[in-house]
Amino acid sequence: MFFDIAEFHQWFEQRCTAHAYKVSRIPLDRLDGWSLEADSGNLVHRSGRFFSVQGLEVTDSGRAVEAWQQPIIVQPEHGILGILVKEFDGVPHCLLQAKMEPGNVNLVQLSPTVQATKSNYTRVHGGRPVPYLEHFVAPRGGEVLFDALQSEQASWFLAKRNRNMIVRTDADVPVLDDFCWLSFDQIAELLQNDDLVNMDTRTVLSGAVALRRPTTGPGTRHGDDTFDAALAGSWQQQGRSLHNTVELLSWFTEAKGRCTLERRLVPLAGVSNWSHRDGVVAHDEDRHFTVLGVNVEASNREVTGWSQPMFAPRSQGVIAFLAKRLDGVLHLLVQARIETGALDRIEMAPTVQCQPADYTADPFGTRQPAGRPPYLDTVLAATPDRIRFDAVQSEEGGRFYHAQSRYLLVETDDDFPLETPPDFAWMTVRQLIGFVGYGSHLNVEARSLLTLLGFLPAAARAPQPVAA
Amino acid sequence: MFFDIAEFHQWFEQRCTAHAYKVSRIPLDRLDGWSLEADSGNLVHRSGRFFSVQGLEVTDSGRAVEAWQQPIIVQPEHGILGILVKEFDGVPHCLLQAKMEPGNVNLVQLSPTVQATKSNYTRVHGGRPVPYLEHFVAPRGGEVLFDALQSEQASWFLAKRNRNMIVRTDADVPVLDDFCWLSFDQIAELLQNDDLVNMDTRTVLSGAVALRRPTTGPGTRHGDDTFDAALAGSWQQQGRSLHNTVELLSWFTEAKGRCTLERRLVPLAGVSNWSHRDGVVAHDEDRHFTVLGVNVEASNREVTGWSQPMFAPRSQGVIAFLAKRLDGVLHLLVQARIETGALDRIEMAPTVQCQPADYTADPFGTRQPAGRPPYLDTVLAATPDRIRFDAVQSEEGGRFYHAQSRYLLVETDDDFPLETPPDFAWMTVRQLIGFVGYGSHLNVEARSLLTLLGFLPAAARAPQPVAA
Repeated sequence: MFFDIAEFHQWFEQRCTAHAYKVSRIPLDRLDGWSLEADSGNLVHRSGRFFSVQGLEVTDSGRAVEAWQQPIIVQPEHGILGILVKEFDGVPHCLLQAKMEPGNVNLVQLSPTVQATKSNYTRVHGGRPVPYLEHFVAPRGGEVLFDALQSEQASWFLAKRNRNMIVRTDADVPVLDDFCWLSFDQIAELLQNDDLVNMDTRTVLSGAVALRRPTTGPGTRHGDDTFDAALAGSWQQQGRSLHNTVELLSWFTEAKGRCTLERRLVPLAGVSNWSHRDGVVAHDEDRHFTVLGVNVEASNREVTGWSQPMFAPRSQGVIAFLAKRLDGVLHLLVQARIETGALDRIEMAPTVQCQPADYTADPFGTRQPAGRPPYLDTVLAATPDRIRFDAVQSEEGGRFYHAQSRYLLVETDDDFPLETPPDFAWMTVRQLIGFVGYGSHLNVEARSLLTLLGFLPAAARAPQPVAA
Repeated sequence: MFFDIAEFHQWFEQRCTAHAYKVSRIPLDRLDGWSLEADSGNLVHRSGRFFSVQGLEVTDSGRAVEAWQQPIIVQPEHGILGILVKEFDGVPHCLLQAKMEPGNVNLVQLSPTVQATKSNYTRVHGGRPVPYLEHFVAPRGGEVLFDALQSEQASWFLAKRNRNMIVRTDADVPVLDDFCWLSFDQIAELLQNDDLVNMDTRTVLSGAVALRRPTTGPGTRHGDDTFDAALAGSWQQQGRSLHNTVELLSWFTEAKGRCTLERRLVPLAGVSNWSHRDGVVAHDEDRHFTVLGVNVEASNREVTGWSQPMFAPRSQGVIAFLAKRLDGVLHLLVQARIETGALDRIEMAPTVQCQPADYTADPFGTRQPAGRPPYLDTVLAATPDRIRFDAVQSEEGGRFYHAQSRYLLVETDDDFPLETPPDFAWMTVRQLIGFVGYGSHLNVEARSLLTLLGFLPAAARAPQPVAA
């Protein structure tokens, strides 16, 4: 445990330098253990396990672009993302790990206690056992506080889900190198840092928002017309809300009923508008993302070195909730979003979730990309006094290379319209907390935002009058 | 509206005779509009719509039989099953329809207000418009009381789901021929009849159990040690329960994590252990079900005549919950069942759900079928004083031919073991009511049982001392 955050940063810096890592880019056809399948051009591992990169054909998407093809990561197995919780002096602490992932811009970030694919923990690659796994697989000793199957980035993964677990234990837990205990309040503070708390930790922590009590910030009184008071109201059990749960479930079901998206796997070699050139698979107009290869040398990972393909987005993402006070209660504008790779195709998503660069005209002005997402301009034009948080966070560093997104909460003016397109609905924090528990309702981006909002430190929530 | 149930039966009998129906069996290769695809042998409609019958290969099922092939109905579109509710003199009534379905043993049963496949209501077959549909598609006037995507018989359908809706209206609703208003209490009484309230009505009504108040039966006092009091306790909001919701969701997630079932479509012609002979597709050992063809002549349906393939089970099913009083509160033994065709493969199911005839030795005793389901013998051996309800109900008469199941609730003795295999858990009625609202949690058989239990008339629940 750390006396203060400075002590944590000291420890973390020390962990980062304790091991030697080297991540270098290499051509896809020179990845050790991986090959391009003869006919399909699919990227597959010689074990037949881990994951593969194949082609996906999408038709009748119901989006601005009706049909397209793209590379996609296929990894049907469920992994476990688990955080172990234990109370010290009555204060719950989470066991987190300083862990290297080759795709992270800064290599080492804070990951959950256990972050293991099924291949990892069944040890297909002959690596070391996964520490602390015994707390998350039956028969377990501890008390399960949260346990749900959740989707991951559905633009890049086909039907990928991980089991998100939080388990409380009273057992003695030896703290291995690279692991540390952090209180919820300390984690809240660390979430304010860019690129420190990794995506896997953020998604699991969305299940812990229910366990936190909304503390009002300094100088806030009940009934105040402040962001802080509106957030506390949004968190309340049985609080006021624009819609009840039955209405929101109906809105969600309706969106699923509207969805016509069809998808099928196709050979990677034949994916239109993408080509294999210069050792990568890239979009012909240099949009979206690139499939590239990396070689990893590390001294402390499950194995000491490996190669793998990764997806590298071409530009930074913007992931934002618009929020509005309704009757003094903060409501978030949630999208029932068509999620290309998600099992059930529709999930609850942030108001805005895209790479804005994909929606700008090309340098020659010859082509205007279709369908600039609704509300994107509202988010990008938000003035600082409207922005409740703003941090750059990394996406999964095990599959995505230097994938970063700007996560924002923007509070709108009073005169922002209440009416929305049919695939948007206003919800309270409490309603999102309810849905996240059932799994496969909130997408990974919405879960990250819920964590950032649910763990927003009181100090970061200075009273803000509604009329700035 | 009917003054009493006798008046309803009179009306119903009159509706049954008002139209002329003729359903005859014909060979699969002589179905009008349907053909056996040249290479695959799949049964397809010339429109390319409706549904098709294909082959399914299942591997790593995790059941007693690890791998098999079978015919399966493929119908990926979502239909709507909707019940319109309106209050008369303060009493909610449901608009139900006397409707012929070719697979019903008695042809006509009570169906929901709207029971339409997407092909129906987009009128692919050029039929008449679906009456009352406007109450269920946006923009609607009424108030949505329930709206969830729910799976259907996953042993016979691949990923089939229908939208189950209950909509309350204050509008004037003209009552067409074949339609009638029935109060919840009248429906409760009709559910006691065999083969009268069809499967579609039963599954939608599972969403109405939340709207009903547990009335205690005659002579029951609070705190009584009776079935009736235990049922009322099981229904209570915030009542006592063996497990909390987080624990049950974790149990459900765990079962999904254990599931290894893989499936893929294969040509119907090549399905092993099944063959096309004498105009049907049948199992070589005459087990499970048969795919057969019917020709329908009717005077009042969307079209006046048609042919179609249907699945005909070889024997009657048994669908039962075992129940046990824990601390005076009724708990049902729910199974996290591997559902062959369900989207997410695992759903919450009754304690027992099978065709017992599939688990008896063949007449020559040469083959003992694998895996007699747990608890089947407990259900079949239950003495009358342990049976809380027992009715034969029909499965969907639009796809299944003479498919009937015996639906039972059996209350166990006090000394029945509390311990269960890992894929079973004890739940209260209130907990099932919670899960049914989220869709894709309870399978169709469990939803039918929830309706039968939730609508059990007070008169049918005479006080039963726990020690018989």
